[in-house]
Amino acid sequence: MIILGVDPGTGVTGYGVIRSVGGSYSLIECGVIRTATSEPLHTRLHEIHQGITELIARHQPQALAVEDVFYSRNVRTTVVLGHARGVVLLAGAHAGLEVAEYPPAEIKKAVTGTGAATKPQVQFMVTQLLRLKSPPQPADASDGVAVALTHAMSAHLRRIAEVAHAPVTRVPLTR
Amino acid sequence: MIILGVDPGTGVTGYGVIRSVGGSYSLIECGVIRTATSEPLHTRLHEIHQGITELIARHQPQALAVEDVFYSRNVRTTVVLGHARGVVLLAGAHAGLEVAEYPPAEIKKAVTGTGAATKPQVQFMVTQLLRLKSPPQPADASDGVAVALTHAMSAHLRRIAEVAHAPVTRVPLTR
Repeated sequence: MIILGVDPGTGVTGYGVIRSVGGSYSLIECGVIRTATSEPLHTRLHEIHQGITELIARHQPQALAVEDVFYSRNVRTTVVLGHARGVVLLAGAHAGLEVAEYPPAEIKKAVTGTGAATKPQVQFMVTQLLRLKSPPQPADASDGVAVALTHAMSAHLRRIAEVAHAPVTRVPLTR
Repeated sequence: MIILGVDPGTGVTGYGVIRSVGGSYSLIECGVIRTATSEPLHTRLHEIHQGITELIARHQPQALAVEDVFYSRNVRTTVVLGHARGVVLLAGAHAGLEVAEYPPAEIKKAVTGTGAATKPQVQFMVTQLLRLKSPPQPADASDGVAVALTHAMSAHLRRIAEVAHAPVTRVPLTR
């Protein structure tokens, strides 16, 4: 199963494409889509949507996993972020993908075992889980990879629970 | 000039298509795009985007005018609304339209002369400006028409200012 994970932002949208085979994960591609703050909002949304659509065309993932909104103290910032998330979710709907959304704390918990993990802890575990030599760069790309991993793990967990009736505790969610 | 005005919402998105010729306005079509609260967010965003894209294809407007976010006390509601606005703006960017955004108070002021106008006052003036027998129904459609009118008036105003150097005060903005 190929999964596209996205951490949306109006300035920088991080993404990671991973392959998940029976509880083992490998990184296919990761990176960021950057938009210029000097551009009007609708142009930036177009660029984000275009970027995600191209990734879907290139890698043909079965699922799109998107990080949920982080509620910043600046409501305006959070609302503009909502616009970016909207066009990312739309790209998944257009392509007929399975679309899942995960709150930041759930992503941290899935990858590191604790919802209060720091950014370096998340990066460390992403690096371990994918057997990489160094953390995905830039950091926003790592966030996209983390949400893809979260989806892979919960999908794997659901499959075990549904198909094999194996005890859920055996899944190496937290290592 | 044909203008598509949109008042986005995740549940109900109101729209109005008007023709503007030399400071005179006529209604071409108005209505609402409704999405079911039982559907997942990405499906609803897809329906909103589809609806706006079809309106653009049918009427070939030169401009898309979109009402800005109303900051509700419920931040979650406002953020979800941001998602809907995002896909509306995207539809305009895709079609290469001139895209403009107007805050609620500016729309009220343009249509009625006061930024503190009530909903019935806005509906009354929309009805007058378009020489309709009754206000556009449902009320959300009327909001879409109002933002289209706002754009028509400010575009008309800009044209007068740029081309004819005529006094701006002659524009019948407030009747």
